[in-house]
Amino acid sequence: MDDKLASWNGGSAKQAIVEFIERTTTPGGPDYLEPAERVATFDNDGTMWIEQPLPVQLDFIFRSLAAAAQRDSSLAEQQPYKAILEQDEEFFAAVGQQQPEAIMSLEKALAANWHGTKPSEFDAEVLRYLEGTKSEKFDKPYTELVYKPMLELFDLLRANEFRVFVCSGGGRDFMRVIAESAWGINKEDVIGTAPQYEYKDGELRRTDEVLGGIALGPGKPEHIFATAGRLPTFAGGNADVDIEMLESAKFSILVVHDDDEREFAYTAAAEKSVAAAEQQDWTLVSVKNDWKMVF
Amino acid sequence: MDDKLASWNGGSAKQAIVEFIERTTTPGGPDYLEPAERVATFDNDGTMWIEQPLPVQLDFIFRSLAAAAQRDSSLAEQQPYKAILEQDEEFFAAVGQQQPEAIMSLEKALAANWHGTKPSEFDAEVLRYLEGTKSEKFDKPYTELVYKPMLELFDLLRANEFRVFVCSGGGRDFMRVIAESAWGINKEDVIGTAPQYEYKDGELRRTDEVLGGIALGPGKPEHIFATAGRLPTFAGGNADVDIEMLESAKFSILVVHDDDEREFAYTAAAEKSVAAAEQQDWTLVSVKNDWKMVF
Repeated sequence: MDDKLASWNGGSAKQAIVEFIERTTTPGGPDYLEPAERVATFDNDGTMWIEQPLPVQLDFIFRSLAAAAQRDSSLAEQQPYKAILEQDEEFFAAVGQQQPEAIMSLEKALAANWHGTKPSEFDAEVLRYLEGTKSEKFDKPYTELVYKPMLELFDLLRANEFRVFVCSGGGRDFMRVIAESAWGINKEDVIGTAPQYEYKDGELRRTDEVLGGIALGPGKPEHIFATAGRLPTFAGGNADVDIEMLESAKFSILVVHDDDEREFAYTAAAEKSVAAAEQQDWTLVSVKNDWKMVF
Repeated sequence: MDDKLASWNGGSAKQAIVEFIERTTTPGGPDYLEPAERVATFDNDGTMWIEQPLPVQLDFIFRSLAAAAQRDSSLAEQQPYKAILEQDEEFFAAVGQQQPEAIMSLEKALAANWHGTKPSEFDAEVLRYLEGTKSEKFDKPYTELVYKPMLELFDLLRANEFRVFVCSGGGRDFMRVIAESAWGINKEDVIGTAPQYEYKDGELRRTDEVLGGIALGPGKPEHIFATAGRLPTFAGGNADVDIEMLESAKFSILVVHDDDEREFAYTAAAEKSVAAAEQQDWTLVSVKNDWKMVF
C-alpha cells in the first residue's frame, strides 16, 4: 500500500494514514467499514493546492468585481467594491483569514454580480481566468500547482473503495470547472458555498440566494451531510475553518505549511487547528518533512 | 446488452433505451459522451416503486403527524393535523396529486415535527415504520415492491459507466435509509426535498428550514444541478411533477401505469406528462406491455 504514496517520506504521518486505511478495509477486523461508509473529504485551498499569497478563488473574485465596478461607476463607492479598488489591506487580510463576515459580504456582492448567469457563462469566465493567470512565485498556472502527495492519497483511497469529495468554503461552481480535469473528482463530489439556481424556460440561471449557507466552520459538516448523507470517515484540512469537519471525521489529517522554499511557510488562520490537532490526535502532515515533492 | 434487461419485453421501449445507451457510449460516434457526463436520474414514487393507494412516504408522514397530535392535543385543531385526524378526502387528494401548496403545508408541519432531531433518530423512526408496514394489495413490505425492470435498467446504466441518482419530491432523508439496501444507490446519490441541518457540539440536528426548496416540477432540475453539477443525460419519471426533469435530459422515459392486475392502473396527476411525452418524443414505458414481471 505504501508504494502508492511515492511522494511521501516514510514517517509517522504516512504510517498513520496507511494503518487507518488498512484497518477500516480489512474484512473481519474490529474497525472494518462497509464500502458505502467510506467517505473522504478534503478542503481545497491549502490542502489540495496553493493558497498564497491569496486563495485562487479570491483573486478571481476580486478581478471580476473590480471589472464590474469599472463597467458601472455607481458600484465603485460601495463595499466591497471600494475596498477592492483601493486595495484595502485590512479588508484583504480579513478575507484572507476567511473571517465569516468578510466572506459573507463578498458572497453577497458575488450573488449580485452573477445574478441571472447561466452555468455555461460562469464556467467560461472561470476558464478564461485560469488560462490567463499564473502564480507569480512558480510562474505556472494554478491548475499545475496541485499537491502531488494529495493526488496520490486520493488514488490510494479510491483503490480502497473510498469516495473522495472536496469541501471548501470557496465557490462550488468555480471548483466544478476544474475538478474533473485537475483533481480527478467528479462534479457531484464537489462541495462548497453555492448559489441557488432557478430552472425556467428550459434554462438554469443563478438567483441571488446562497444555498444552505457558507461552507466554513460548522458549515463544512453541514454541507458534507447534505451532499454525502453521512459525516466523513477520513478528512483533510489545513486551517481553523476546517476544525469542525476534522472533528466530525473518524480520522483526520492537518497539512502544516512550513516549507518556504518549495511552497510557502505560514501559520495565519491555522493556529487553532494545530492546537486542536494535538488535543484530538489528528495526524499532522508537514509539507517540509512528510512530502518528498510538493507538485 | 439486451440480456441485462431480462424483465423487459422486446418492443420499442426496450429498443429505444438500448440504442440510446449504445450510441452515447460508443467511442468515436457522433453522440458519444465522456463517462463524467453520464448522469441518470429517476423519480422514486411510481417510477422505482409503487405509489398506490398513497405514496409510501405520505403514509409514513400522516402516521407520524397523527401520533404527534395524539401526544399534543393543541395540534389537533391545526392544519394539516386536523385534516389527517379527520381523514379529509379533499386534503388527501391534493397531497396525492403532489399539488405544491399541499406538499409545502405538509413540509412545514414536518419541519416542526422533526425540529432538533438527529439523523440517527429519524433513521430509526423510518426503519420502525418500514418494518411494521405492508402494502395491503400485495401483503408485502414496500421495500419488496421495487420494480425489477428498473433495477435491471440501473445495472445496465452502471455497467455503461452512468451514475444513477434518484430524484424525488419526497424526503431525501427517508429515501437515504433504504437507498443502499433496496436500490443499490449510495446515500450521496439520493436527491429529494430536505431539511437544513445545524452542526453544533459535535452533533447534526434538524432546523425547520427546507434546503433549496421542494424537489418537484422545476425544483427537480434545480436539485439535480445542485447535487450532480449537470443536468441529466438519461431521466425517468411517471408524473406531471417530473416534466421539467424529463425535458432537461437528453433521453427520457415515462412509466405509464396501465396494469391493474399486476400493479395499479391510474392516470391521475400524469395526464400532462403523457401529452408532453408525445410532443417531446420521450419513450413511453407501459407496465402492462413492456414489463415481463413487475417486482
